Amino acid sequence: MSHHHESSTINIQEPIKSEARGKFGAMKVVKAMGSSGGGALKRGLAIFDFILRLAALAAALGATIAMGTSDQTLNFFTQFFQFRARYDDLPAFSFFVAANAVASGYLVLSLPFSIVSIVRPQASGVRMLLIIFDTIAVALISAGAGAAAAIVYLAHKGNNKINWAAICQQFGSFCERVSGAVVASFIAAFIFILLVFISAASLKKN
Amino acid sequence: MSHHHESSTINIQEPIKSEARGKFGAMKVVKAMGSSGGGALKRGLAIFDFILRLAALAAALGATIAMGTSDQTLNFFTQFFQFRARYDDLPAFSFFVAANAVASGYLVLSLPFSIVSIVRPQASGVRMLLIIFDTIAVALISAGAGAAAAIVYLAHKGNNKINWAAICQQFGSFCERVSGAVVASFIAAFIFILLVFISAASLKKN
Repeated sequence: MSHHHESSTINIQEPIKSEARGKFGAMKVVKAMGSSGGGALKRGLAIFDFILRLAALAAALGATIAMGTSDQTLNFFTQFFQFRARYDDLPAFSFFVAANAVASGYLVLSLPFSIVSIVRPQASGVRMLLIIFDTIAVALISAGAGAAAAIVYLAHKGNNKINWAAICQQFGSFCERVSGAVVASFIAAFIFILLVFISAASLKKN
Repeated sequence: MSHHHESSTINIQEPIKSEARGKFGAMKVVKAMGSSGGGALKRGLAIFDFILRLAALAAALGATIAMGTSDQTLNFFTQFFQFRARYDDLPAFSFFVAANAVASGYLVLSLPFSIVSIVRPQASGVRMLLIIFDTIAVALISAGAGAAAAIVYLAHKGNNKINWAAICQQFGSFCERVSGAVVASFIAAFIFILLVFISAASLKKN
């Protein structure tokens, strides 16, 4: 009977642990466990996730605005010839603006979910939602940045074989602005990759 | 005392379940459990992962070869003028070939790891490794496909404002081949996104 009594004292803790692994009641148990266990690590990851989302938002929004407001007009000797460079002259730049704007909007919407996973570090449903949309954002931003980078490269260097002229000698400030936007967008893509890693580490059993 | 006895019978099953969640001994327990539980689902996902990797390899390798062998020479009326279009005339296309070749190489290397996760569906270390490199592959392939798509679009339509001429009227078969490679690469990127989702679902506790 003493043996039965021992196993029943262990038994009391088991349902609490499995409750901690479940969706609800995770917070109380984590607090009771103190800093030990995966809860604290996952909460740290969730806080890092939130900070990275703010950084990605700054980069993606900066890229959107820098590219979206790029506009340079050149007045040549006569009033008859006026040349103007704007992002929407090139479909690749328009796609770039759309991709970064969509990613920025998604980042704003994802912030509450990131907060939920700080409060409930063990909730895997929220993590799954974030990892799915973060992965799509990686593809979207990378494709947009790649497309814009290809055109920016062409604008800087031109192409002798195909007879596409470099335009950055004339449109210097336009090219600078656009190049900055592309760099910001690649930074945003890199942060999105880190966000996927964080979600994966949070989903992992530890 | 009857109450104590009841709770101790539940207690016997708890350590087995937590062992199943651990890294080792997962297989035996899954076999003992039969087809019920998350083991069968995760094995199904792992098999699907392997098949998708073969499909992604076909797409990425196809894109690499189609772009890498694109070469069209035009002989004009005299022998003095000869025009030739090759992928390495354009840095965006060279990057495209490199990105798809690297992704193809990675896919071949990832196949044994995919097999490991079929044999051990609960092993989360292999899943973490795959999700990290799959996410990087999503970014790499998307950037390459985006860059090539921007140039292909330009080759088809040209740009009046910047005075970049369309070249696909002359180099029709070159453009067709290059466009096909871009489509194949976007398919590979899409499959990589699915592979990240599969890894995430496998890491998730169920």
